[in-house]
Amino acid sequence: MTHSAATMVTVQQTARPHGFPTAGLFAFVESPVPDPAPGTALVENLYWSVDPYHRGMMDADFALHAPLEGRTLGRVIASRDPGLAEGDLVFHREGWRTHALVTEGRAGARRIRSYEGVPLSAHLSLLGGTGLTAYVALTRTLRLQPGEDLFVSAAAGGVGTATARIARLLGAGRLVGSAGSAAKVAHLTGHLGYDAAFDYHDGSVEELLAKAAPDGLDTALENVGGDHLAGAIANLRHHGRLAWVGAVGQYHHADQPPAAPRNLYDIVTKSLRVEGVMVRNYPHLQDEFEDFLVPHLRSGAVTADATVVEGFDRIVEAFLGMLRGENVGKMLVRAAGQL
Amino acid sequence: MTHSAATMVTVQQTARPHGFPTAGLFAFVESPVPDPAPGTALVENLYWSVDPYHRGMMDADFALHAPLEGRTLGRVIASRDPGLAEGDLVFHREGWRTHALVTEGRAGARRIRSYEGVPLSAHLSLLGGTGLTAYVALTRTLRLQPGEDLFVSAAAGGVGTATARIARLLGAGRLVGSAGSAAKVAHLTGHLGYDAAFDYHDGSVEELLAKAAPDGLDTALENVGGDHLAGAIANLRHHGRLAWVGAVGQYHHADQPPAAPRNLYDIVTKSLRVEGVMVRNYPHLQDEFEDFLVPHLRSGAVTADATVVEGFDRIVEAFLGMLRGENVGKMLVRAAGQL
Repeated sequence: MTHSAATMVTVQQTARPHGFPTAGLFAFVESPVPDPAPGTALVENLYWSVDPYHRGMMDADFALHAPLEGRTLGRVIASRDPGLAEGDLVFHREGWRTHALVTEGRAGARRIRSYEGVPLSAHLSLLGGTGLTAYVALTRTLRLQPGEDLFVSAAAGGVGTATARIARLLGAGRLVGSAGSAAKVAHLTGHLGYDAAFDYHDGSVEELLAKAAPDGLDTALENVGGDHLAGAIANLRHHGRLAWVGAVGQYHHADQPPAAPRNLYDIVTKSLRVEGVMVRNYPHLQDEFEDFLVPHLRSGAVTADATVVEGFDRIVEAFLGMLRGENVGKMLVRAAGQL
Repeated sequence: MTHSAATMVTVQQTARPHGFPTAGLFAFVESPVPDPAPGTALVENLYWSVDPYHRGMMDADFALHAPLEGRTLGRVIASRDPGLAEGDLVFHREGWRTHALVTEGRAGARRIRSYEGVPLSAHLSLLGGTGLTAYVALTRTLRLQPGEDLFVSAAAGGVGTATARIARLLGAGRLVGSAGSAAKVAHLTGHLGYDAAFDYHDGSVEELLAKAAPDGLDTALENVGGDHLAGAIANLRHHGRLAWVGAVGQYHHADQPPAAPRNLYDIVTKSLRVEGVMVRNYPHLQDEFEDFLVPHLRSGAVTADATVVEGFDRIVEAFLGMLRGENVGKMLVRAAGQL
């Protein structure tokens, strides 16, 4: 598929999924690139984020036959917004399309702080929503203390890789991660800073985690739900804390509620704390987060882990691959030819 | 049943329960009153506490054909412990018996601080473990702020009545309680300081609570589990907090795990905090708690709500009655003739 410069392409959902979604549920729709109205700027998009929560939105929140929402980075190519100039780099949420009209400070759109030596794509990965999720969960929800041990589920994914990078900077003790393949498990311990890792296909999460963390855990960042949540609860020590950020393993069963763990009453007997985290409640921490992380990105102490698919035409393919767990680090799509 | 002054009577469990326990699972066993060994004091017990957690202990923790544990108040009648003198009033955990050998500062035994104008029994109710449970849950777990609304399940019980009394002193907003009979519901709003209450037999807890707290709730103190936990989660506002202190409704089903709520994922979507509380972790707060509460007990601003059964011979009857919910306030047993 190719598109002329004067054509905007939007991805639209055309039907609701039953179980695992397919490419046939989406259409690429062409229309003329719009002119910016007064107070808006026209952005040509360069990077797109595809995320587990999009799967949840497909069941009801995404309107059919309409543009979708998604975290995106682009460059202003025409502006009638006094807050944005041509050439500015902008983060916004009008994703899944080649162009968008945005207004600085509205609906999450903001000019990004550009940092020498930091790749642009980092603004959608370690400096983006997944990184901020990890930062909020570690510093606000768990209040991780130096030396404390941490379990991370879906550890090779966007939030999981960011969690390991940030937890190390905070002085975490033992880091244990779970993932869905032997290759990912090797990558977790070989490259991503985990002390131990396991493939959750190899048995019960509770038992695998007990082997990987025989002395128990102070904290957990839960990203999967179901057996992973039960396994974390079983292996937390007394007064352990769990930050619950998502249920990527449950999004394909929207017709039935996510399985609740059988050992839930351990919350009482072990005096555990379980707390939900929604990153959308913490935009005010973005600057603090960047001030904390950017020096480490520049020095090379941390890496913005990402799997990047090239070409907007492949955004649906990238999304489905992310749902199948094909990415290590954040799954991103890059405009063809963009560095 | 009568006993000579030189006879000690202990209640012993003789078999494990299947479902709701019966009096036939217990025996009253006589033996000579022991002489205190060096370092111990002989206590004649005056008040006994029977508690929901005893039901849980019947499944495995209580040894068969052996004395049981329970919170008790007694008077020293002979002492070879330099820390205790004849006549001293002592709290200890060697319950379910007429006499006990204790050592000051060991196994939870301590000389109680006696307060003019405060009835002795208050040390096992509002000033005892149930009151301390409520105090810890409100001030440490929930950190209840003035004006915040609170739901309390099993609101007419020992922890429930103490929670309402203490929450009012802390400036709580709307107080909503659940109980198991129309008479209790009337008592909750008529005498115990609740703004609204419902009988959980009248429908789904989620819907009944939504009617009683149409604007939602900031906090909940959960004492029942199952439908009550689900109802609380459903009616908490975003960023709501839940202190989970017990599952009195679940103790009769030890062969199956307590039902987990179907709406557990609301913890994530509403950014809720759920935290377990075990009062046994907070003995160091007992003095702070008494300093806070005793002036209000003396002034009459709060009452130590209790249902008192007279006669040690009726301790099993009192325990089973408590499990059936026959008490309002803490269920206590008083030695015959004791005021």
